[in-house]
Amino acid sequence: MIETPPSTPPSRGPAEHSVREQIVAAAEEHFSHYGYEKTTVSDLAKSIGFSKAYIYKFFDSKQTIGEAICSKVLSAIVEAIEEAVMNASTPTEKFRRMFKALVETGSNLFFNDRKLYDIAAHSAGEGWPSARGYAQHIKQMLLEIIREGRESGEFERKTPLDETVHSIFLVMHPYVNPLLLQHNLDLVEDAPAQLSNLVLRSLAP
Amino acid sequence: MIETPPSTPPSRGPAEHSVREQIVAAAEEHFSHYGYEKTTVSDLAKSIGFSKAYIYKFFDSKQTIGEAICSKVLSAIVEAIEEAVMNASTPTEKFRRMFKALVETGSNLFFNDRKLYDIAAHSAGEGWPSARGYAQHIKQMLLEIIREGRESGEFERKTPLDETVHSIFLVMHPYVNPLLLQHNLDLVEDAPAQLSNLVLRSLAP
Repeated sequence: MIETPPSTPPSRGPAEHSVREQIVAAAEEHFSHYGYEKTTVSDLAKSIGFSKAYIYKFFDSKQTIGEAICSKVLSAIVEAIEEAVMNASTPTEKFRRMFKALVETGSNLFFNDRKLYDIAAHSAGEGWPSARGYAQHIKQMLLEIIREGRESGEFERKTPLDETVHSIFLVMHPYVNPLLLQHNLDLVEDAPAQLSNLVLRSLAP
Repeated sequence: MIETPPSTPPSRGPAEHSVREQIVAAAEEHFSHYGYEKTTVSDLAKSIGFSKAYIYKFFDSKQTIGEAICSKVLSAIVEAIEEAVMNASTPTEKFRRMFKALVETGSNLFFNDRKLYDIAAHSAGEGWPSARGYAQHIKQMLLEIIREGRESGEFERKTPLDETVHSIFLVMHPYVNPLLLQHNLDLVEDAPAQLSNLVLRSLAP
């Protein structure tokens, strides 16, 4: 879950890092109420109690603020996945937990708790660096699990590794990308387990 | 063929049948230019040159007309799939061709040629009978291919048949449902073959 620090006015001469964080936290709060699309930097400045010029000292544009929020949310998903996978004893179990954690955390963060779908949709639809980086990160985690399973003899080795990783990523993609996930919310309960079973059958040596 | 939607009133004779077809064809043309959402039955009546009352003699509502158009489009996809599968010699080849034809025809009909996405989105989003019937039909075709492959020894038989069919349908779902397909259009070229390979590996005995 994301922590939302209360939007307090800046103290005198705060560290740049802390002001940035303050703006991001306040913007996240604001966007989650009023939506990303309809909010301007002026609205945001007014609501935070900063001047527009002051915000522009830290962020080039509304998208840059959106990007920072998106990065935070996506990092939280990655952390949740890493935590879920950490104590799994086999690559099979790692894959199952990865898929489950990804879908659960993603659907919670984007659709239930924070209503940050609006930003996530822009991020995914316009290929923001945070969204591209997230997909890349998921692919990398997948690659490591598959490689480990191949080395231990748990998974087949005939199919080229990159082909295996890419096709499994395609299976997960509708649950990774929030634009697709929004239409899959009735499936998030059962689909990860059912698709994991299918993928694991395809990985059998 | 797709089940006839229950909301469509029964045909009352050949003449009526032809008027219905005329209204559906004109509505399809109109919707593909002006969109389904924004058009009222009055707009439609004006554009076709019929009175609103006359249209209501044949269709209960705008949705009933939309349903009829949707049924037509979905029937065309099913026909294209059946044709593609017809001369395939093995269940493996049938599955490949089914997936390919489904994605190609679906993305053409909904997104390129006719711009009927608007109707398809309502149909899928609101679970119209035509959309539910279509998904049911695709599942049934899948079931028959899997069953044939199990009988010929080409596919594994350990997994319960309904579990196999359901999980493969989940893999195809983002390409069956136009709400998801709209975000997958950059994948339609390669994904069907890549996902077919993965699914066929999962079906290996």
